[in-house]
Amino acid sequence: MERLHDIGEDALIERITAGLSLGSDVVAGAGDDCAVLESADPAVYELLKTDCLVEGVHFAVDSDPEQVGWKALCRSLSDIAAMAGKPRAALVTLAVPGDREVAVVEGWYRGLRLAAERYGVSIVGGETSSLPDKSNAAFLSITLTGSVAREACVLRGGARVGDAIVVTGSLGGSLTSGRHLNFEPRLSEAAWLAANFRPSAMMDLSDGLAKDLPRLAKASGDLGWRIDLESVPVENGCDLAAAIGDGEDYELLFTVSAESVGELRRTWAEAFSGPKLTVIGEITRDMETPLQGGWDHFPNS
Amino acid sequence: MERLHDIGEDALIERITAGLSLGSDVVAGAGDDCAVLESADPAVYELLKTDCLVEGVHFAVDSDPEQVGWKALCRSLSDIAAMAGKPRAALVTLAVPGDREVAVVEGWYRGLRLAAERYGVSIVGGETSSLPDKSNAAFLSITLTGSVAREACVLRGGARVGDAIVVTGSLGGSLTSGRHLNFEPRLSEAAWLAANFRPSAMMDLSDGLAKDLPRLAKASGDLGWRIDLESVPVENGCDLAAAIGDGEDYELLFTVSAESVGELRRTWAEAFSGPKLTVIGEITRDMETPLQGGWDHFPNS
Repeated sequence: MERLHDIGEDALIERITAGLSLGSDVVAGAGDDCAVLESADPAVYELLKTDCLVEGVHFAVDSDPEQVGWKALCRSLSDIAAMAGKPRAALVTLAVPGDREVAVVEGWYRGLRLAAERYGVSIVGGETSSLPDKSNAAFLSITLTGSVAREACVLRGGARVGDAIVVTGSLGGSLTSGRHLNFEPRLSEAAWLAANFRPSAMMDLSDGLAKDLPRLAKASGDLGWRIDLESVPVENGCDLAAAIGDGEDYELLFTVSAESVGELRRTWAEAFSGPKLTVIGEITRDMETPLQGGWDHFPNS
Repeated sequence: MERLHDIGEDALIERITAGLSLGSDVVAGAGDDCAVLESADPAVYELLKTDCLVEGVHFAVDSDPEQVGWKALCRSLSDIAAMAGKPRAALVTLAVPGDREVAVVEGWYRGLRLAAERYGVSIVGGETSSLPDKSNAAFLSITLTGSVAREACVLRGGARVGDAIVVTGSLGGSLTSGRHLNFEPRLSEAAWLAANFRPSAMMDLSDGLAKDLPRLAKASGDLGWRIDLESVPVENGCDLAAAIGDGEDYELLFTVSAESVGELRRTWAEAFSGPKLTVIGEITRDMETPLQGGWDHFPNS
């Protein structure tokens, strides 16, 4: 009898999403950071994203509820950023055992509201469910809608051989440092990149470079990569393995033409005082730097 | 220390959604069957709905996975129907312990695809998460988008004193008969009603008449109702208490002007051979027929 941890997360998703029938208004379905749909305005695409936080997986029982709420919305905001989009409306689904404190749920909502107000999102509805047993893991599931100018939208499948591979910020240690609970989604940085440098591909780093870069390369026509491991921006207190494999960085991973790198570096430094920008390698035909690690929801046990 | 089952589901939702700041493009936020937003086309509204199924609450561990998938999407379709809308795109979030059989998740997806193809929905993405312990309740969370012509959209807050209260189908026993796993959302019926009779208010019956009618009456300016209990359409094998309190009927509850009832009855019978239509009472200024029962996710223990 085949079980989920026998096949792993990516194989599961491939199986269940294979051959889904999509309407002609769907520009990109399952597999990118967001789904992309045509809107009534031919110059604008709609973006749709859903994402969930499970207690014991994405946050601890004793995590600060307000930070949990912040993280719940900011994870989806990070995916809207990965398309160079602008967020709009959110739906919030909560499932919690009935004997939990009201104050925990109220704390989650305080964090959700903080993030919603900060990034201009309307919380327009949701769903609240009990769980059958008090030992069950509580969860928050968020849906976020957004929009992006058709010409600015960046998918993850457009990288070309020779493109530079670039990341924002520094990587690793997000779970141990607590950064995963209070990070800032790179919405303005991504919009700036799309407007000024048209990345050929972009995604956000949520499962770690070792897991996410292969997804970008695969979506771009089964390309490879060469990573200059010494250039990977490692967060203080971490080692390279953590930077590549920890995940939950919520930084941008993108590719741009090699010719634009000089100009990109110069103007980025003028535009943003916060997160740095690092070229870590190059898209190649064949894979030259295998990477180990990254997060899998159903790892082989 | 206040716990969720001390305050109940409706009070929790009131607390966490009070004073949410909404963009000017939001026509209806939390509290109706769907959120309603303006679209780029001034004649069309966008609809957004999220809904979740929790194992042990909304389905049993041994429920047929294909039927669970069907139910998961059809619950949200029923909410789109309640706005007289047309469904468009769905996102599917699954959380499952890693030792579950792959066949169960594949079964869920078969049911989701069946419903999606039947009702013209594109499944455009989703999220898959593990759960921390194999004893944890699995869940499916669905987000559905849709649209409705601005002039056809029916909210739940428009009932007026003297309006007739009408339900489709027959009520009660959905969980024991298994109807909750294979029901058909009333999309075509609702669109027909909106086009021909402009209901003053409409919602779908998911938590039982005793829970849902008060929500419609409250949203319509704290109105009351008189129900002719003998007229309530009771499903075969059920009693009146079950028809009022069981929930999971996924029928339409709506109000229309008393003058239109004769014409509505006559033309409905011509248009639909399936679900019947029953006038069960009247909207009043003050409540005349208190109803007991209905589903609460956090009942006082």
